[in-house]
Amino acid sequence: MSKRIKKIGVLTSGGDSPGMNAAIRSVVRACAYYNVECVGIYRGYQGMIEGDFENMGPRSVNNIVNKGGTILKSARSKDFMTPEGRAKAHENLVEYGVNALVVIGGDGSFTGAEVFNKEYKFPVIGIPGTIDNDIFGTSHTLGFDTALNTVVEAIDKIRDTASSHNRLFLVEVMGRDAGHIALNAGIGAGAEEILIPEEDLGLERLLESLRKSKLSGKSSSIVVIAEGDKIGKNVFELKDYIEENQPEYDIRVSVLGHMQRGGSPSCFDRVLASRLGVKAVESILEGKSNYMVGMLNDKVCLTPLDQAIKGHSQIDQELLRVSDIMTT
Amino acid sequence: MSKRIKKIGVLTSGGDSPGMNAAIRSVVRACAYYNVECVGIYRGYQGMIEGDFENMGPRSVNNIVNKGGTILKSARSKDFMTPEGRAKAHENLVEYGVNALVVIGGDGSFTGAEVFNKEYKFPVIGIPGTIDNDIFGTSHTLGFDTALNTVVEAIDKIRDTASSHNRLFLVEVMGRDAGHIALNAGIGAGAEEILIPEEDLGLERLLESLRKSKLSGKSSSIVVIAEGDKIGKNVFELKDYIEENQPEYDIRVSVLGHMQRGGSPSCFDRVLASRLGVKAVESILEGKSNYMVGMLNDKVCLTPLDQAIKGHSQIDQELLRVSDIMTT
Amino acid sequence: MSKRIKKIGVLTSGGDSPGMNAAIRSVVRACAYYNVECVGIYRGYQGMIEGDFENMGPRSVNNIVNKGGTILKSARSKDFMTPEGRAKAHENLVEYGVNALVVIGGDGSFTGAEVFNKEYKFPVIGIPGTIDNDIFGTSHTLGFDTALNTVVEAIDKIRDTASSHNRLFLVEVMGRDAGHIALNAGIGAGAEEILIPEEDLGLERLLESLRKSKLSGKSSSIVVIAEGDKIGKNVFELKDYIEENQPEYDIRVSVLGHMQRGGSPSCFDRVLASRLGVKAVESILEGKSNYMVGMLNDKVCLTPLDQAIKGHSQIDQELLRVSDIMTT
Amino acid sequence: MSKRIKKIGVLTSGGDSPGMNAAIRSVVRACAYYNVECVGIYRGYQGMIEGDFENMGPRSVNNIVNKGGTILKSARSKDFMTPEGRAKAHENLVEYGVNALVVIGGDGSFTGAEVFNKEYKFPVIGIPGTIDNDIFGTSHTLGFDTALNTVVEAIDKIRDTASSHNRLFLVEVMGRDAGHIALNAGIGAGAEEILIPEEDLGLERLLESLRKSKLSGKSSSIVVIAEGDKIGKNVFELKDYIEENQPEYDIRVSVLGHMQRGGSPSCFDRVLASRLGVKAVESILEGKSNYMVGMLNDKVCLTPLDQAIKGHSQIDQELLRVSDIMTT
Repeated sequence: MSKRIKKIGVLTSGGDSPGMNAAIRSVVRACAYYNVECVGIYRGYQGMIEGDFENMGPRSVNNIVNKGGTILKSARSKDFMTPEGRAKAHENLVEYGVNALVVIGGDGSFTGAEVFNKEYKFPVIGIPGTIDNDIFGTSHTLGFDTALNTVVEAIDKIRDTASSHNRLFLVEVMGRDAGHIALNAGIGAGAEEILIPEEDLGLERLLESLRKSKLSGKSSSIVVIAEGDKIGKNVFELKDYIEENQPEYDIRVSVLGHMQRGGSPSCFDRVLASRLGVKAVESILEGKSNYMVGMLNDKVCLTPLDQAIKGHSQIDQELLRVSDIMTT
Repeated sequence: MSKRIKKIGVLTSGGDSPGMNAAIRSVVRACAYYNVECVGIYRGYQGMIEGDFENMGPRSVNNIVNKGGTILKSARSKDFMTPEGRAKAHENLVEYGVNALVVIGGDGSFTGAEVFNKEYKFPVIGIPGTIDNDIFGTSHTLGFDTALNTVVEAIDKIRDTASSHNRLFLVEVMGRDAGHIALNAGIGAGAEEILIPEEDLGLERLLESLRKSKLSGKSSSIVVIAEGDKIGKNVFELKDYIEENQPEYDIRVSVLGHMQRGGSPSCFDRVLASRLGVKAVESILEGKSNYMVGMLNDKVCLTPLDQAIKGHSQIDQELLRVSDIMTT
Repeated sequence: MSKRIKKIGVLTSGGDSPGMNAAIRSVVRACAYYNVECVGIYRGYQGMIEGDFENMGPRSVNNIVNKGGTILKSARSKDFMTPEGRAKAHENLVEYGVNALVVIGGDGSFTGAEVFNKEYKFPVIGIPGTIDNDIFGTSHTLGFDTALNTVVEAIDKIRDTASSHNRLFLVEVMGRDAGHIALNAGIGAGAEEILIPEEDLGLERLLESLRKSKLSGKSSSIVVIAEGDKIGKNVFELKDYIEENQPEYDIRVSVLGHMQRGGSPSCFDRVLASRLGVKAVESILEGKSNYMVGMLNDKVCLTPLDQAIKGHSQIDQELLRVSDIMTT
Repeated sequence: MSKRIKKIGVLTSGGDSPGMNAAIRSVVRACAYYNVECVGIYRGYQGMIEGDFENMGPRSVNNIVNKGGTILKSARSKDFMTPEGRAKAHENLVEYGVNALVVIGGDGSFTGAEVFNKEYKFPVIGIPGTIDNDIFGTSHTLGFDTALNTVVEAIDKIRDTASSHNRLFLVEVMGRDAGHIALNAGIGAGAEEILIPEEDLGLERLLESLRKSKLSGKSSSIVVIAEGDKIGKNVFELKDYIEENQPEYDIRVSVLGHMQRGGSPSCFDRVLASRLGVKAVESILEGKSNYMVGMLNDKVCLTPLDQAIKGHSQIDQELLRVSDIMTT
């Protein structure tokens, strides 16, 4: 155990995701277990700059393992993008006696952590918290599993009314650059077609697929669409396009929106958060820095932060094939 | 018991709502209990015109009490608005030996039932099935309670992310002409403001209310808006308006959409459906016609169909006052 | 408005139920609306004796409308059954300047409130909070609706495995003296038989009913049993009895237990809590005392506390008949 | 692709688990994709002996991806343990032209499959379907993830009432030989102590841990116990033991029971089922036999059936350590 580390700071940054509270709890409890002090930093890097700190012990994290959102709040900080902002943040950390930082967030947050680490040699460890699952170095990010359940439960409800009315529903889910939510939730919800940013299906093939589905006797259809799908049209333009080309369809649009970011985390996300939080603290105490903790090959592991940022979380080709078979 | 009734037809019409299957099940089981035959009619009045009928016994309705949607499917029928359509429908009913009809749907469906009853003296009883709760003669329509739970669960999730980011969310819920969903779900979700079609709050008062909420230390806010609110702007225009007048707000919009129509019915809706289904069959067997069954004053009751159609389901003034007190 | 009332105390007592927090919130917000101070009393009457008080304003009740349990905690107090205990409690109230009391709980809690009111002429208003729905003077107690949804969701899950294996499940639900949960959840879950304390079905008729259900082709069965059913056997004895007399059954027992008391309240319970809390405060301010607020005939109303305690919440005969028809 | 395979049979056997329907659907759709016929066999091996077969196409598996239980039903078959039973089963398969078998179930079901394969050189592939996660060769069995969510949701509810009353709850979860559910759900639910079959914590240490938890200011506690925990007492005996030795505790027991086996599968289980079903069919078409498909190291993979049966799904030591840190 590194002797220098006496106090660890923890913050959440960027878009919130279910499981962030469970990760905070894990960091706090692991600190207590290893007799290290723990400080919560509010509103991400902005709170670090403003000195919005609070000492945290096991009592501070009672009954939060099952809560969505983040008790430490989150924010995007423009000030932290300036050297002056980071200097002020560093000053505050030093003043509070904080020796190392656990940053829970996505790749934007990790970029900030890396810059800060470079400038001040300040030990940082990242925990991947985002529903999008678009981080390299972990099979699952915190909140991804919960978001998938939120999406399939919503589509299960939409399916009820779609079947009752023989309608076509276009359901937009989150994922501006990554189709992980659309692909997994689309398979899970039994969607008739799935559109993701990583693959250009083409409008013609979509129409063809809908025609085939109708011919096969299916009376209702669900198309799941990632926000950033390659087809180059938003979900309302897509509706217009299909209506022009296939006027027999009675089409409805549903944009699931921000409810995908909230909710009580699934057991999977709570356990993942507990494992990653412990690993983050233990890594710091072993003198490691500038890594992201994650799960790969069913094991907790470390990935250098710069790889986590630059790398790309690929869509699994086997899963794409399963999707093709399920939606045929 | 009327001697003439040997076979009762049942159909679902208009927008589907959770609890319709439980009501179908209740009608079928009540028919079996009273030794009357029961015929399911698919796709509402359209299936009646096309002769899309199926005999139903208790086995046909096993394991549907908890399913959303309607196994009899629903549709809107333009043909039934013509005398020729209704003549064909009547012909089919006579041919199949159907003596009376249970129509599960909203006021559009009841209007069709009433016209049909007038023309052919055909016994009809309506069961109010719509999530909007906008039918006179019943404190609750089938599906209203389930939709409320769907909405508050969604807003609970949105609240997680709103609190984490200190944001203002505008959440649009269903209810084109009636604010029942917005008012009840708004109170249930602890919304900071509720906009309904029945009341013109005024844009200025909304801004004032948001300002007060911010001053009181609230860092995030949820405004629940019925589709057809009086304010004369849709939810996206409202966002623009607030942003122009209160640029400090970070605003997000969420349109909950069609998931509100689906889902496994709540226990309340299942029990309500069971009671109304039994009452519908018993009323027919007692020789009654042209009524809607409903719940008023904690009792199952009958309301003449024309009153149910013309009457208006008023917003409860006491509930409005409670809403004012809760959102102050 | 009574001039004397400047500070209202609120407490939760007896078994907790979902919606208690929403009721606390409503009392606190109504006090703020009417410019009356509000004091939360922890752990029911015991905290009143021990002076465990805390001033509450709107900020104290942020984000609790959707939380199960009670932030004021609950307890049963033996000390409050003694004159000395009540004297100490009264002393504390006077010292803190509390002029009136809102008691959220069941009939045991109301009995305490009534005795206290008699001894000290202290204004008290009761809010019925119990999942059992066994209070006279209200169609719904706080938590009843939520508990019903918890029970039907659990039985829906059990039905999956019962159907897959052609099994008979005996499911015990809460309700020592009252069959409201068993009757409503039994109908809602589509149970094949329902046993409640209010009705002695007789063991022979139960066996007969199971035989008929099997003959009719049903391969699996759910029997819902209230804790205190009249049949005089607990659920495990009942299992043994059926196995002896109908050895062909593969029987499983499930006792749903305390999860029925918890969980995020349904929208119904949240709205009910909001209405009753406002009415409680307004009644106090109108100079009323020794009443319970409740919902009857779709309206908020008052019932003298002694009637609420002595009266009995009858099982609705029409609902019993519906149950007979649904389970035949 | 093996030329001999023209028709694949699929059955579910042993205890049912959520995701079995999604796996059936995947097998059927994969067969259609590869132009192979598919036959559903009802009630596991017993239906195979009785010739209870049905041809299945994509239409047969519409709208089942989200359903708990198994539409093919399940059963334990004593007849299949006899050579005569297996001979009859083989005869039926040959008569129906079935060339290969996909068996969805646990290790008992796999043992039957392996014996059958040995005797008749009949191609078999297993899909691990059990909530217990006790199968070697896969990180997750079908239904495990869903059961974990069911358990944590139930304990979240119990926590509400435990916190309100300062009580100790002993919650028994499924897992006769394996502590996977208890360990993961215990961590996920934030349990204060977790007892599993793989680890003998000792009664004294349990009491010690409860004492420490109380001293640390925790007013309520949840202990999660696997059915088959090593401590050698059932949950009711454990309650008596703690009450004798720590009479200050107000203890309640909750046995979650069979609801853990049912319910709509999580997205994780639906996607897992889809992947494993496709892999099972593709493996058969590649001429493979006597394997179980599973997920290891984030990849779909094959494990010889005999290893899957004899091997043991170990408790992850890192997870045990996380559990120790979280419950300290």
